[in-house]
Amino acid sequence: MNKIRLIAFTTLAVLALALSVRAADLLPSWNDGPAKQAIIEFVQATTDKASPKYVPPEDRIATFDQDGTLWVEHPMYTQVMYCLEQVPALAAKKPELKNMEPFKTVLSGNREAMAKLSMEDLEKILAATLTGMTVDEFNAEVKKWIETVKHPRWKRLYTELVYQPMLEVMQYLRANGFKTYIVTGGGQDFVRVYSARVYGIPPEQVVGTMGGTKYGYDKDGRPILTKEPWLLLNDDNAGKPEGIHLMLGRRPYTAFGNSPGDRQMLEYTKAGDGARLAILVLHDDADREYAYGPAKGLPDTKVGTFTQALYDEAKKRGWTVISMKSDWKRIFAFEK
Amino acid sequence: MNKIRLIAFTTLAVLALALSVRAADLLPSWNDGPAKQAIIEFVQATTDKASPKYVPPEDRIATFDQDGTLWVEHPMYTQVMYCLEQVPALAAKKPELKNMEPFKTVLSGNREAMAKLSMEDLEKILAATLTGMTVDEFNAEVKKWIETVKHPRWKRLYTELVYQPMLEVMQYLRANGFKTYIVTGGGQDFVRVYSARVYGIPPEQVVGTMGGTKYGYDKDGRPILTKEPWLLLNDDNAGKPEGIHLMLGRRPYTAFGNSPGDRQMLEYTKAGDGARLAILVLHDDADREYAYGPAKGLPDTKVGTFTQALYDEAKKRGWTVISMKSDWKRIFAFEK
Repeated sequence: MNKIRLIAFTTLAVLALALSVRAADLLPSWNDGPAKQAIIEFVQATTDKASPKYVPPEDRIATFDQDGTLWVEHPMYTQVMYCLEQVPALAAKKPELKNMEPFKTVLSGNREAMAKLSMEDLEKILAATLTGMTVDEFNAEVKKWIETVKHPRWKRLYTELVYQPMLEVMQYLRANGFKTYIVTGGGQDFVRVYSARVYGIPPEQVVGTMGGTKYGYDKDGRPILTKEPWLLLNDDNAGKPEGIHLMLGRRPYTAFGNSPGDRQMLEYTKAGDGARLAILVLHDDADREYAYGPAKGLPDTKVGTFTQALYDEAKKRGWTVISMKSDWKRIFAFEK
Repeated sequence: MNKIRLIAFTTLAVLALALSVRAADLLPSWNDGPAKQAIIEFVQATTDKASPKYVPPEDRIATFDQDGTLWVEHPMYTQVMYCLEQVPALAAKKPELKNMEPFKTVLSGNREAMAKLSMEDLEKILAATLTGMTVDEFNAEVKKWIETVKHPRWKRLYTELVYQPMLEVMQYLRANGFKTYIVTGGGQDFVRVYSARVYGIPPEQVVGTMGGTKYGYDKDGRPILTKEPWLLLNDDNAGKPEGIHLMLGRRPYTAFGNSPGDRQMLEYTKAGDGARLAILVLHDDADREYAYGPAKGLPDTKVGTFTQALYDEAKKRGWTVISMKSDWKRIFAFEK
């Protein structure tokens, strides 16, 4: 093995050298500014062997919230759109739902009434459309939907609405030996369907809200896993560090989010020793994307709220806040 | 990036060539025979691009049970030994336990009485010694124990009692692009403490029995995760494919086990398309390790039972059974 090891070592050394020289080129969609600088300084501090804050490659973990951090979450979370659009097909299979709320309201197509659905109503819709089928059936259904249905504003696939600067950060971190994870309040199984293709993140590096499955057999005696309605972990707020512990067993060195649901993940990340980077995305660009807060006087929202309290905490604790308007040269890959 | 990609690609190609030539050399502790042959044929079929059963590197997943598959599980599972040995320290902190069963029996040191403890008793001991502390405290305690306490028969650390041939299989699979996972009925947090050092498997690639944690703060306001007594998943029997889905989101191409608790994992693995390898370790070497079944007339046992039904199913379904006695040239690294 010695010869093989030598070849591997030499190449890694060449790669490391080449990459550190070209680091800045890997973030072409970023304007020069404090956010880009914080990211580059963090990577240099953790990957330079001469740095007192050097982190061995096997410990380099980076976590990213999805909705509002990696892709568009307005006017509504993509997964909720998926669930609402599954209701007609579900009602066709289970006609008794047609006269039951909240399904009746969803089937009416009355957007005003739908906007008034309570969290409890929404949970009923999620449970009905995300469980009760096999894992394979669910994966096929999500794959079909995500590859065809388009966002109402841009008339583009939801997966085209990922933020190019964040894709670059993930690639930049991976090129520097970091293992990148999605840590989302969304469904773990939902995001896993497209995470490899869209983000370069394999299914096992997606941490999300987790439901139980049940092992059993189909009518031909073949093993199947059925998605069950019980919740194992709600991967939001305190559930994010709990989910990270469950899935990874260790603390990230950097974490990216955009709302109070990410607060504990950032706090937990920053509480570790050495260099730790915590970043929040502020949606302050109504022209190119959306503007919502209510932090900094931006319009209030029910979806992906960025509170003033979170903004103040970020400033106090040295968390970096990305301004989409001023830090990002372009937001989507399809822009010129 | 093009130049970097070219260098990386060339090296990977050189490595692949070098490795495929030397494949057999990577299993020096294996005797030539059907088990070794099945492993090599599986790796060749899944990694040769010209093979109809070729599997792209990103899909190459291999899962290994731990107790009795990767290391010694007799006379008792290592983690149970740990829990029993924690009882005196626990009773010193909580004196009310001294007169409560099953703690009283454990404190008595009466091995005959301890051997008669019921599964319910054992669960009480596990819950009391594996939960109620922070994750960091638990990790430190396990690390100290596993690095000092020795096995009663060999007077060696438990981590020295890993099976050398299985370490070689894991290295051989990894050298061929497989991601190796432990999938154990033991505690996920327990195994993660030493998995990287002992097996070369990072904590996030350990799937085990999972308990809940709770995010909170210590007296100085620093975030902590506390191990809670509720169970998220019992990673045994049907829980193994359920745990694999939860943690990985996809089906392994090969799985290794040694008892009925691994049956569903092997069944699930073999139910996939293409080349799938399912392997069971039979403990039939009383001289060098232990002999227990009751399959093939070997002595019966309560720890790591290998039933005749499992043996018959393996033969019927084309699962490979490793005879420790005839397939393994040496069992432990410390043997000459």
